[in-house]
Amino acid sequence: MIAGHVFIATSLDGYIAKLDGGIEWLLCRDDPTEDHGYNDFIKGMDGMIMGRGTYEKALTFDSWTYTVPVVVLSKSLTVDDVPRKQRGKVRILDKSPSDAMALLESEGWRNVYIDGGIIIQSFLREKLISDMVITAVPVLLGEGRRLFGSLSEEISLTHRTTRFFPSGLVQSTYAVSK
Amino acid sequence: MIAGHVFIATSLDGYIAKLDGGIEWLLCRDDPTEDHGYNDFIKGMDGMIMGRGTYEKALTFDSWTYTVPVVVLSKSLTVDDVPRKQRGKVRILDKSPSDAMALLESEGWRNVYIDGGIIIQSFLREKLISDMVITAVPVLLGEGRRLFGSLSEEISLTHRTTRFFPSGLVQSTYAVSK
Repeated sequence: MIAGHVFIATSLDGYIAKLDGGIEWLLCRDDPTEDHGYNDFIKGMDGMIMGRGTYEKALTFDSWTYTVPVVVLSKSLTVDDVPRKQRGKVRILDKSPSDAMALLESEGWRNVYIDGGIIIQSFLREKLISDMVITAVPVLLGEGRRLFGSLSEEISLTHRTTRFFPSGLVQSTYAVSK
Repeated sequence: MIAGHVFIATSLDGYIAKLDGGIEWLLCRDDPTEDHGYNDFIKGMDGMIMGRGTYEKALTFDSWTYTVPVVVLSKSLTVDDVPRKQRGKVRILDKSPSDAMALLESEGWRNVYIDGGIIIQSFLREKLISDMVITAVPVLLGEGRRLFGSLSEEISLTHRTTRFFPSGLVQSTYAVSK
C-alpha cells in the first residue's frame, strides 16, 4: 500500500509561509548544525508530491534541492512549464490526490513525501496521509499561509514522539487515524 | 513588575474550542491521572484575567473551578451580572489590558493567569504576556475558535522546555520576547 508522509515546519501559530510565500522567519531561526532528520526522512521516500504553489516557489531557489522524483499536481501547468534541466526529475499530473496516489502505486511507489499547505490539506481530507512530522518554530507570525485548513470531520492523531533542539525547534511525530 | 502568563490547550491545528465553544475533543483526550502541571501553575498566580466569553462559558459549568480571584474584562457586563455566590471572587473591569494590569499591579498583583483566545490575543499585542505553556492535543478540528490571531508585527519566542504524556498531549513552554 502506498502512504503519504508529511515533514514540515510551521510557526507556533500554524503558518508555513508568509502571505507572499516568504520563509525568512524560518531560515533565520534554523541552525544548520542541527540534524532535524530531513535527510533520514527523504531517504525513505520513493518520491514527492507538491502543488503548483510549492513548485513555483522551488523554481525560484538557486538550485534544485530535491533528491527524489517530484510529481506536481496541477490543472494548469503542462510539461512545457518544466525547465529542460528538470525533465525526468519533475512530472506534471492533472489528477486528484487519490488518482495520483493510485497511479504512483501502480508504478511501485510505496512512500510519498507530501509537501505544501494546500496539497497536505487535500491529502488529509482524502485520508491519504499516514503520518506527519511537524516542527514548530518559536515565532508568532500573525498571518500567512496556513498548514492546516477546513475538514469535513475531526481527524484524530496518535502522538509518536517529540524532541526539541537548542535552536528552539520542537518536532513532533503523529500517526493519522484512518 | 506584573506579568501575564498563559496556560492553555489547543488542537494541533490551533483551536481552543469549537465554534460553539465546545471542548469535548479536549476532555475526551485528557487523562485525569496525568499531572499536566496546572495546579503548580495556578499556585504561582495572584489571580486571573478572562474575557466575557470565557467567563460566560465558566458560568455554565456545574461548579466554579477557579481558586484564585478572577477579573473579567468586559465593556458590557456589570457587577449585576455576577451571581451572588461569586461576589468577592469575580470582579468586572471595563478597562484595556494595560490599564487593567496597571490597576492590579497597584493592588500588589505580580503574576496573572491570562485565559481565553480573544484576551490572550489582546495581551500579546500589548506585550503583556511573559510566557506561555501551550499543550497540543492530538487532533485536527478543521474549524473553531483560534488561540492566536493577527498581530501588528511578528513575536519572537524563546523555547524553554517541552514534555509529552502517554495521553499524547505535548506541552511546550515559551518565553515571549519583549
